[in-house]
Amino acid sequence: MSKAMTAQETKNLFVKHEAMLKSAAAAVQSRAFFAHWVEAPSKSVYGETANEDGLAAYQSKCNKPWQGLRQSYDSMKLSSEVSPFTCQSLGISWPVFDSHESYIRKSIESWPAWRKASPELRAGILAEALSRIGKRFFEMAYATMHTTGQGFMMAFQASGPHSNDRALEALSMGYSEQSRFPANVEWKKPMGKFDVVLQKQYKIVPLGISLAIGCSTFPVWNTVPGVFASLVTGNPVIWKPHPGAVYPAAIVVEEIQIVLSENGYDPHICQLCVDTADNPIAKKLAGHPAVKLIDYTGGNAFGNAIESLPGKRTFTEKAGINSLVLHSCNDIGAMMQNIATSLSLYSGQMCTCPQNIFVPKSGIVAGGATIPYEEVVTLLANAVKGLVTHEKAGHATLGAVQNENTSMRVKEAQGLGFRILLDSLKIPNPEFPSARTASHILIEVPADKIAVYEKEMFGPIAFVIPVSDATEGVRLAKELASKHGAITFAAYTTDHAMQELMIEEISGTFTSVSFNFVGPIWVNQSAGFSDFHLTGGNPAGNASLTDPEFVSRRFEIVGIRIHP
Amino acid sequence: MSKAMTAQETKNLFVKHEAMLKSAAAAVQSRAFFAHWVEAPSKSVYGETANEDGLAAYQSKCNKPWQGLRQSYDSMKLSSEVSPFTCQSLGISWPVFDSHESYIRKSIESWPAWRKASPELRAGILAEALSRIGKRFFEMAYATMHTTGQGFMMAFQASGPHSNDRALEALSMGYSEQSRFPANVEWKKPMGKFDVVLQKQYKIVPLGISLAIGCSTFPVWNTVPGVFASLVTGNPVIWKPHPGAVYPAAIVVEEIQIVLSENGYDPHICQLCVDTADNPIAKKLAGHPAVKLIDYTGGNAFGNAIESLPGKRTFTEKAGINSLVLHSCNDIGAMMQNIATSLSLYSGQMCTCPQNIFVPKSGIVAGGATIPYEEVVTLLANAVKGLVTHEKAGHATLGAVQNENTSMRVKEAQGLGFRILLDSLKIPNPEFPSARTASHILIEVPADKIAVYEKEMFGPIAFVIPVSDATEGVRLAKELASKHGAITFAAYTTDHAMQELMIEEISGTFTSVSFNFVGPIWVNQSAGFSDFHLTGGNPAGNASLTDPEFVSRRFEIVGIRIHP
Repeated sequence: MSKAMTAQETKNLFVKHEAMLKSAAAAVQSRAFFAHWVEAPSKSVYGETANEDGLAAYQSKCNKPWQGLRQSYDSMKLSSEVSPFTCQSLGISWPVFDSHESYIRKSIESWPAWRKASPELRAGILAEALSRIGKRFFEMAYATMHTTGQGFMMAFQASGPHSNDRALEALSMGYSEQSRFPANVEWKKPMGKFDVVLQKQYKIVPLGISLAIGCSTFPVWNTVPGVFASLVTGNPVIWKPHPGAVYPAAIVVEEIQIVLSENGYDPHICQLCVDTADNPIAKKLAGHPAVKLIDYTGGNAFGNAIESLPGKRTFTEKAGINSLVLHSCNDIGAMMQNIATSLSLYSGQMCTCPQNIFVPKSGIVAGGATIPYEEVVTLLANAVKGLVTHEKAGHATLGAVQNENTSMRVKEAQGLGFRILLDSLKIPNPEFPSARTASHILIEVPADKIAVYEKEMFGPIAFVIPVSDATEGVRLAKELASKHGAITFAAYTTDHAMQELMIEEISGTFTSVSFNFVGPIWVNQSAGFSDFHLTGGNPAGNASLTDPEFVSRRFEIVGIRIHP
Repeated sequence: MSKAMTAQETKNLFVKHEAMLKSAAAAVQSRAFFAHWVEAPSKSVYGETANEDGLAAYQSKCNKPWQGLRQSYDSMKLSSEVSPFTCQSLGISWPVFDSHESYIRKSIESWPAWRKASPELRAGILAEALSRIGKRFFEMAYATMHTTGQGFMMAFQASGPHSNDRALEALSMGYSEQSRFPANVEWKKPMGKFDVVLQKQYKIVPLGISLAIGCSTFPVWNTVPGVFASLVTGNPVIWKPHPGAVYPAAIVVEEIQIVLSENGYDPHICQLCVDTADNPIAKKLAGHPAVKLIDYTGGNAFGNAIESLPGKRTFTEKAGINSLVLHSCNDIGAMMQNIATSLSLYSGQMCTCPQNIFVPKSGIVAGGATIPYEEVVTLLANAVKGLVTHEKAGHATLGAVQNENTSMRVKEAQGLGFRILLDSLKIPNPEFPSARTASHILIEVPADKIAVYEKEMFGPIAFVIPVSDATEGVRLAKELASKHGAITFAAYTTDHAMQELMIEEISGTFTSVSFNFVGPIWVNQSAGFSDFHLTGGNPAGNASLTDPEFVSRRFEIVGIRIHP
């Protein structure tokens, strides 16, 4: 640990990053486009050798005990991280405590100094950490690729600039919510002949230990908002990544710990807690009475258990059933291209990817002409096939399948007994011959077989559901979203009344709605500072990235009244 | 139902009350003193005959079926309202549905128009209702007296101006949180050679049916914030008052229904749902899947059950164990007067009333001199006795005991077997010879008998606990607040370091702290627009009146993205 900076130097970190925090706060407020980090992995932005350096950094850390974290540990344990591209273990062992109680104890010990630090000081330290993570985006990209299976470009963007932007959004929001009310006021109540005067203080009191439980597909993007929101509001964090995707999370924790240490704070304010699939620790930590806040991304069964723990405030993202309804469009080719990409991006392993595509049996109207149902589904299947078999774009869009369960799910879908409009293909990746790949399978399922398509089929599986008309599609999409949750709803319609109907019906299920996306923008994407990711209002999750509650529920304001 | 106003006239309601809403929003922000309604029942403010008119209105409604509500019903049922002053039934029968499903159905039917109404329109209607309730403060005072047992002055203030102010606070906060983000933006993402442009809408979507469950002691003050917060954010409300305190709630619901009807809205947007102690309905309503929001004030057992209902957002105030620690003061007489009043106000039936008084065995320092323990407790007992036996102030301060259970609890306390420092007295009320009255019993309990004083003894019961020093008192108060919850913590100390210690330790339990109150200000009081009532951070309740979350959790923002 380096020598602690003086308080003045630490305060300077806030001053150093004040402009960034202010732009972020203004962006949150305006909801217009904003990005602090550049999403393209460009040499001119990130440096001529950034890519090679990042790859070298990644390679140098594989097959070794991890060195950079500043936290205490009992032993080093090999994680179950396996690259979906090489199907080889990353071979990294991680510092771990034997007992979950040790993480809790370290967290409790670290807390008093952090809760006493001012919101400015906390924001300065965290902004500095983000700026340092920004220098490791390429290493982060390779670490993300080889844990999640995302293609390089998505891995770079999702775990790099987009994650840092989402973290900055939460940091900015968390900082500003703490200064929403004055810290002190003189309260003077006129009583006729005299006044009663009280000095009042409004003290920001953090809730307690914050547990962040990550997932295997977006190990950074989904978790950093909660981590930064908890930290800036004065809560110590225990970050338990998915055992299959530790490395990307470790980069973030490491940079936070370094900046904490440099500024004289205990690095255990933010701990990485690595477990293994055969000896999971999340349940023990979540149930511990000192844990007050839990951020969770993952499956429904554990997510529901987390939500129902008494005495915890939880922020969950679970599974949803996303729908897409076709009604009418201007350019059917552009529409099909967009849908094909939307499905194929990361082989459908995005929580925002459409699963159920409702197509009117009477066809759709495109550029004034009616396109019959059969032609619509053929165009769709061809668009997907054309994309995934494209020599360059195909494997780059798909990436690899994170785990074997998802591959098994594709097999399960193949065996459902319904008409297969397009079968899943194993798309060779020239760079990684062992990559676990699968393109989308498109299956036609009758509208009355709701038991089939009301189940989340995470991965490259989509159902095409013929409906009597778009309104029936909306009705079914609404039913699924209300019952099982949904994160996105996409539709193509050139009809204003239909658009209004869809907005009214689907917004009532607390699902975001996207119309007529064509070109380089997809329903899967959720833009930091502008789009709320989830609403918190349906079973897909109980929180929203990043609305004011997402940060304000991590502290309370306690009033102090002093009679002079 | 009167003829519906035009949309323009309805919009004018917002314009009519815009200044009030703006002052309220400014007050919420500044936390300085603000009151829209005058708390004194003054003739010059409320009119020469306001008191007589209010009494007459009250008397004219007793022993009859209630007429003023605009809601449908199956039959009229006599409530179990009994005046604690006369011990006679109020004799009012109320419109009720046979089944809880009817309230739900009416609520669902009323919802679409209300959710489509703009926040301005909703705020205008609700502000108008508050202004009309303001004309019924005296009737409200008598209705509150004869259901809760509060003395006239408290009944006037608590259910009248203070309640209206708390409702206005929630209304103002709910209105402003809905306009926190823009309703529409153009999002333009630069892509190098071109921009991706999306039209984005941020739609405020109300959660669903809101159930408000009231209590018998503060039937309006505790419930109006949630009711107004839910209504202004577009949720229909079912207000289920305590069966022993219906009338005060009915005044509020009635005025809301009248203004709704006048403006062409279904009065069932806000329904009164009267049940009886032997046929309670709250559990059925709370468990109904269409009910999404629950505001609750009451006991722990049912409160905990409410909080653990899956799929609901709950806003609870349950029981807490409030502590008072004596350390040092300037004027021991003024201190004892203040404590005596704080205990005796409404016979200790305030959720903010201290229960456990920690007194150092070595005594306290007052004006430089040490006052021995025995003298301190004698002075305290004498101050309470002096106040409650005062011919005019005594019965006026105490009011009456709301129900027989509280009287029984006093008997239970008498039989605990500990030293009684002051016994409870039945204080005659000259105006109401049958009034159920009881002054405070003060019982000395050793610090190691925590099982005795960690139990909430709601009513005129306080424990004096000798401790080795004030720090031990703080430690015990902290333990009780963490374990069982607390709403207030009061202390007397002239020592800065002790004050800082108390702030640090007690704020960590999410309990508000009040120091050195003397004169006409008591720890029991919580000022609208300035004091947060509860924090939501300890077992005394999970919500805070009125922080931003209290309103923002009643709606979600759903994003709509349109590619042009």
